[in-house]
Amino acid sequence: MHEPPVCLAEFEELAAKVLPGDIRDFIDGGSGREQTLRANRAAFDRVFLVPRVLRDVSACSTRTTLLGRPAAMPVAVAPVAYHRLAHPDGEPATARAARDAGVPFTVSTLSSVPVEDVTALGGHVWFQLYCLRDHAATLGLIRRAEDAGCRALMLTLDVPWMARRPRDMRNRFRLPPHVRPVHLTADSETEAHRGASGGSALAAHTAMELSAAVDWSYLETLRAASGLPLVVKGILDPDDARRAADVGVDGIVVSNHGGRQLDGAIAGLDALPGVAESVGDRCEIMLDGGVRSGADVLKALALGASGVLVGRPVIWGLAADGERGVRTVLDLLGAEIKDALGLTGCGDVAAARALKTTWPGT
Amino acid sequence: MHEPPVCLAEFEELAAKVLPGDIRDFIDGGSGREQTLRANRAAFDRVFLVPRVLRDVSACSTRTTLLGRPAAMPVAVAPVAYHRLAHPDGEPATARAARDAGVPFTVSTLSSVPVEDVTALGGHVWFQLYCLRDHAATLGLIRRAEDAGCRALMLTLDVPWMARRPRDMRNRFRLPPHVRPVHLTADSETEAHRGASGGSALAAHTAMELSAAVDWSYLETLRAASGLPLVVKGILDPDDARRAADVGVDGIVVSNHGGRQLDGAIAGLDALPGVAESVGDRCEIMLDGGVRSGADVLKALALGASGVLVGRPVIWGLAADGERGVRTVLDLLGAEIKDALGLTGCGDVAAARALKTTWPGT
Amino acid sequence: MHEPPVCLAEFEELAAKVLPGDIRDFIDGGSGREQTLRANRAAFDRVFLVPRVLRDVSACSTRTTLLGRPAAMPVAVAPVAYHRLAHPDGEPATARAARDAGVPFTVSTLSSVPVEDVTALGGHVWFQLYCLRDHAATLGLIRRAEDAGCRALMLTLDVPWMARRPRDMRNRFRLPPHVRPVHLTADSETEAHRGASGGSALAAHTAMELSAAVDWSYLETLRAASGLPLVVKGILDPDDARRAADVGVDGIVVSNHGGRQLDGAIAGLDALPGVAESVGDRCEIMLDGGVRSGADVLKALALGASGVLVGRPVIWGLAADGERGVRTVLDLLGAEIKDALGLTGCGDVAAARALKTTWPGT
Amino acid sequence: MHEPPVCLAEFEELAAKVLPGDIRDFIDGGSGREQTLRANRAAFDRVFLVPRVLRDVSACSTRTTLLGRPAAMPVAVAPVAYHRLAHPDGEPATARAARDAGVPFTVSTLSSVPVEDVTALGGHVWFQLYCLRDHAATLGLIRRAEDAGCRALMLTLDVPWMARRPRDMRNRFRLPPHVRPVHLTADSETEAHRGASGGSALAAHTAMELSAAVDWSYLETLRAASGLPLVVKGILDPDDARRAADVGVDGIVVSNHGGRQLDGAIAGLDALPGVAESVGDRCEIMLDGGVRSGADVLKALALGASGVLVGRPVIWGLAADGERGVRTVLDLLGAEIKDALGLTGCGDVAAARALKTTWPGT
Ligand SMILES: Cc1cc2nc3c(=O)[nH]c(=O)nc-3n(C[C@H](O)[C@H](O)[C@H](O)COP(=O)(O)O)c2cc1C
Ligand SMILES: Cc1cc2nc3c(=O)[nH]c(=O)nc-3n(C[C@H](O)[C@H](O)[C@H](O)COP(=O)(O)O)c2cc1C
Ligand SMILES: Cc1cc2nc3c(=O)[nH]c(=O)nc-3n(C[C@H](O)[C@H](O)[C@H](O)COP(=O)(O)O)c2cc1C
Ligand SMILES: Cc1cc2nc3c(=O)[nH]c(=O)nc-3n(C[C@H](O)[C@H](O)[C@H](O)COP(=O)(O)O)c2cc1C
Repeated sequence: MHEPPVCLAEFEELAAKVLPGDIRDFIDGGSGREQTLRANRAAFDRVFLVPRVLRDVSACSTRTTLLGRPAAMPVAVAPVAYHRLAHPDGEPATARAARDAGVPFTVSTLSSVPVEDVTALGGHVWFQLYCLRDHAATLGLIRRAEDAGCRALMLTLDVPWMARRPRDMRNRFRLPPHVRPVHLTADSETEAHRGASGGSALAAHTAMELSAAVDWSYLETLRAASGLPLVVKGILDPDDARRAADVGVDGIVVSNHGGRQLDGAIAGLDALPGVAESVGDRCEIMLDGGVRSGADVLKALALGASGVLVGRPVIWGLAADGERGVRTVLDLLGAEIKDALGLTGCGDVAAARALKTTWPGT
Repeated sequence: MHEPPVCLAEFEELAAKVLPGDIRDFIDGGSGREQTLRANRAAFDRVFLVPRVLRDVSACSTRTTLLGRPAAMPVAVAPVAYHRLAHPDGEPATARAARDAGVPFTVSTLSSVPVEDVTALGGHVWFQLYCLRDHAATLGLIRRAEDAGCRALMLTLDVPWMARRPRDMRNRFRLPPHVRPVHLTADSETEAHRGASGGSALAAHTAMELSAAVDWSYLETLRAASGLPLVVKGILDPDDARRAADVGVDGIVVSNHGGRQLDGAIAGLDALPGVAESVGDRCEIMLDGGVRSGADVLKALALGASGVLVGRPVIWGLAADGERGVRTVLDLLGAEIKDALGLTGCGDVAAARALKTTWPGT
Repeated sequence: MHEPPVCLAEFEELAAKVLPGDIRDFIDGGSGREQTLRANRAAFDRVFLVPRVLRDVSACSTRTTLLGRPAAMPVAVAPVAYHRLAHPDGEPATARAARDAGVPFTVSTLSSVPVEDVTALGGHVWFQLYCLRDHAATLGLIRRAEDAGCRALMLTLDVPWMARRPRDMRNRFRLPPHVRPVHLTADSETEAHRGASGGSALAAHTAMELSAAVDWSYLETLRAASGLPLVVKGILDPDDARRAADVGVDGIVVSNHGGRQLDGAIAGLDALPGVAESVGDRCEIMLDGGVRSGADVLKALALGASGVLVGRPVIWGLAADGERGVRTVLDLLGAEIKDALGLTGCGDVAAARALKTTWPGT
Repeated sequence: MHEPPVCLAEFEELAAKVLPGDIRDFIDGGSGREQTLRANRAAFDRVFLVPRVLRDVSACSTRTTLLGRPAAMPVAVAPVAYHRLAHPDGEPATARAARDAGVPFTVSTLSSVPVEDVTALGGHVWFQLYCLRDHAATLGLIRRAEDAGCRALMLTLDVPWMARRPRDMRNRFRLPPHVRPVHLTADSETEAHRGASGGSALAAHTAMELSAAVDWSYLETLRAASGLPLVVKGILDPDDARRAADVGVDGIVVSNHGGRQLDGAIAGLDALPGVAESVGDRCEIMLDGGVRSGADVLKALALGASGVLVGRPVIWGLAADGERGVRTVLDLLGAEIKDALGLTGCGDVAAARALKTTWPGT
């Protein structure tokens, strides 16, 4: 990387250059015909902001709070499985960059490095939970996350199992030996490493591990199981959002899992206004899927989010240049958010939530 | 086929590789400028689903009923003329795969193998009727279908004659000698085999055989002519649908004949909500045209269908690999439907009908 | 032409092969950035028809009346200047084909052959009038058209002068010596033949000849000047249409001059419903611009027209194969209209006006 | 330039041929992903005009007033920094062409030639103000503009700082030595000339010079600081427009700075109707961004503007052929406006404001 990249999209290409094809496909790809993957970007491309003028933005700041704690910008690193697929340094490299950028980092249940190694680095760490078939193991993970010092639990609701992802199926994608789901097993070889006949080994692995039987009572159980702030990730229907708020969650991530679960699912950004309206200010609302610029972040804020998660761009940064790459990605995003705030006449993140939006071609 | 295909679209290419150009054109093509053929797909690409979460989908099942009888999934094989064009094994190969997949198979009036040879294989067989000029022959076909053990009659209403199909006209398409409309004649050569000057021999043949004079009284006559469940295929206008329900049909297939009849006709999926609203639960509503994935099936369910017919993908499977190809197509579709059900929080087909839909770019 | 073409679009290519580039540009091109030229087609591509079923279409007929006289189909040949640009046989060749197809033929003020030579061939001939600077000459043309036996006058309202047409400007387009505006002058060389500096000689010529000073009183004058049915061509605004009906015109052609006058003008098809609503049945409404198939004709009928004019396709036919080419174009169009009528359950043209339409992507 | 160009777009290519890549990028480029740059054009491509007929347009005139003074057409030259980047003759060449075309010329704060050298040429000159950090300097510029004979002040509100513009950042764009911000400093080298590490030197320069602290009280101060007509440029939100009118500005330019400031900002044309409605006739409304033809000007008029500013096309003309190029650009635009007026039945600019518009694909 001679030239410093000037926008997040450039990292997609940089990562593509260094990653083996099947890993790139795993990271970049979506489920089915990738209608939803494309829709995540198309949703941002259709919406426009109406900037304000004549407001003092000389002290314009991206600072905000996420789940009640200060964050340098309204951005958190999304839970992404197996950072070591992208770079040998794995989660700790990403987490250090996030820590220094002042944004929360989410450790996945499918982390390739133990959560304790991440929280040890300091910073604001969240733990993403999958609903495991083995309920005791789920509770064990919660305890482990609490003990490690995680500051929130993020329960992912859109994965009863891994969706059919044609790229991975064609690649018969499986984990390389040095990458392992360290939170789930001590075995050096798992289902995720074994070639599944005609499919993705990761799908076979998650099918074994994850529970498809979770319902609203499960959420109540989890709500009661820990005193940590609880965020649910993967809600798109306003009625589900309202009910989650009724159960007392602290936050909702409006998300279609980056176009990786139901192909044909509504883009998060398209779902956001309905969810925001139905939840009001009863809990925090975050958005993920397709966020690639500071203007995208402002669009999400203007449509009702208090912050966004960013998945692939962070991983592209990691793949392209390790911790330094992630650092650049987050720096760029912070600079772009600040730029967009000032250019819309917003002195702070709260002001951005009051911007008008428009969909002129529709 | 070394790699097992992972989605239905792949079979289009596989079939294209093995089929002669004119047969491929006959199967894949549409009428006129193919505006409606494209619209069938575009309609699915515009609509998005809003998944639900926190519902137990561990026992998620694709089972349902179609016309009052159990089906393994909300799918039936659409009536398609002359399966032997695609593969020498013809209709029996397709029917065996459908039987084993637990879905109804529709024998066309223009079948290249006698209906008795199909029903003899078991499974759930429907008979598609064209309104013939020779009314006695139509009644004879009904008797024959009843005697053979067909479980429903599907009367196709959108073919007063075959539409102008430029590809077939340019190819001067005609049947090869080994493929014949066995239900209509015992002759080894028919109009469908003779080169028509400057046009499609199949169009010339159907112009001779089919009646353009049918009206609502004809439907009443047919309704009275058989005790079998009666389905009408090719309805797009809500008023026509209501009137068909008044006549007492058991089912309606919302269809534009796969973009092969009126070019410029509304896509079935676009017509579906209006038809569903106008008919209510007075009869079953099915949808065809452009269904290529499990998510497509769920979109049709969410918009008011109780099931779909699938035409070309089944024929692509047959062309590509005979019975085994059809089997793979139906297996894939079943797996995708199940995937989509679970990922939308639907434990069964009924739940899918309550999903919300959205057209975000419009 | 070995293969008989199967649709009108093919004639565009056939004509392109035989015509010199500048003549092709003159015929096919539009004004400005050709936004309106494209919009004329896009309007048809966006609208869909809702076919009806179970109506006897065995005696389906395309016959209708246009301006009170029988026509074999709801189509007339649009006024097009200088047919001899396309083919040495010029207007008489086109007119013979129109006569035999049973459709009205419109002679342009800018005809390259005298109107008398056209009416002498029989058939149903209309005369298109431009508002000339020399009012006596306009009245002279009216008399001449009456004497020659023309059955209607069509006054073109959208040409105060010829619009800026970049293709012609770049080509410095001018008439070849053998093509002349025979109704306007006996001179063998006119402004239209002389190279205009940096522009179109035809634009220079029409600027000299046509009046930009016409207003509503002019229409009243013309209304009074002849007992022939009077049609106004080039109306797009519903208020203008109402006022024209108030003046007592017999017909209105909703038209943007084939995308050749105001670039940025609304497509005729998009303007049609508003005009039809504002005029009611006080006069006949025709539509032109982009009609390329029988389904297009039905769309125009369903949106309120009683017929359409066809411009370029007829000229492509003429260029490609003289009279025979026009014959084929009109035969194809008739066959397509009949096809579309039957496939929508319409026994006649009147039924098509009651079809529902839909714009699903908007 | 052998062939005289026939439309403004051609100048884009002509300029591209003669300009160094980085200067071309600076002129043509936008901020971020250039979503707004594209939207500026897309907005014009989506809207259509409904022409009127039967109005005398023989004396059709493009004359109008802008800010109370006569202008030959409803067009002014937008403020554009550093004309000497495009051509060594710089602002005086452009200004002479504008003067002769009878349209106002706006001198930028970032002019490469002193305002006095421009006003000395005569014509109708406006002065564009940036809000400088050094308020005394701002006031000094106002005095200087007044003394030089400028007839209006145009305060640009959408630049608290220069937006992130990836093309300039990648090019590390900086001013060549012979081009300088003559109004801001006498130094021959400025921040704008020094290579900024990994970014645009112009961005670094403006960040030093411009104030991000301006608010509504600042506007009141400026309103009081000069008796010249005051125009604010860069308003998109109807509430901001209303408030500016409350402060007593004489004009508002609805603008997103040609897609160069907030990427994701609404297109000016899309914002125009809302601004026009909220302001009524309390002040003049101008529009800029993407105006490339006479029809575009009419669209802006029909949607509520009393005139437009044109930026890049004028600079392309300057780059391509100096003063003569600008002359051709303005002549073309005038001819196109007149053409569009006549073809819509508008005898004057006021009539164009009453034209109906439509967005048929939406
Ligand atoms: C390679 C990859 C792995 C992911 N792993 C997880 C995961 O383990 N848990 C989870 O809740 N979401 C996971 N996600 C989804 C992300 O948290 C997030 O929803 C998505 O990436 C956001 O979209 P974006 O990538 O367009 O920013 C993963 C996403 C990617 C791309
Ligand atoms: C090659 C072919 C032959 C067909 N033959 C018949 C037929 O004999 N009778 C009938 O009712 N429909 C027929 N159809 C229409 C299908 O039943 C069905 O409506 C259509 O194929 C659905 O669209 P799809 O192919 O996109 O799934 C045929 C379709 C194709 C592609
Ligand atoms: C080459 C050409 C010449 C034309 N000349 C005339 C004319 O002399 N008078 C007239 O009223 N319209 C004229 N028109 C417009 C046509 O009457 C008609 O409005 C238009 O062609 C319809 O669009 P279409 O070509 O897409 O069918 C001309 C059109 C073309 C293409
Ligand atoms: C190269 C360039 C420099 C510009 N400099 C200024 C400037 O100094 N001050 C200003 O108010 N606007 C400036 N603008 C914005 C223009 O005034 C105007 O808003 C914009 O160019 C209109 O869009 P258009 O270029 O598509 O016509 C500049 C635009 C360009 C392209």
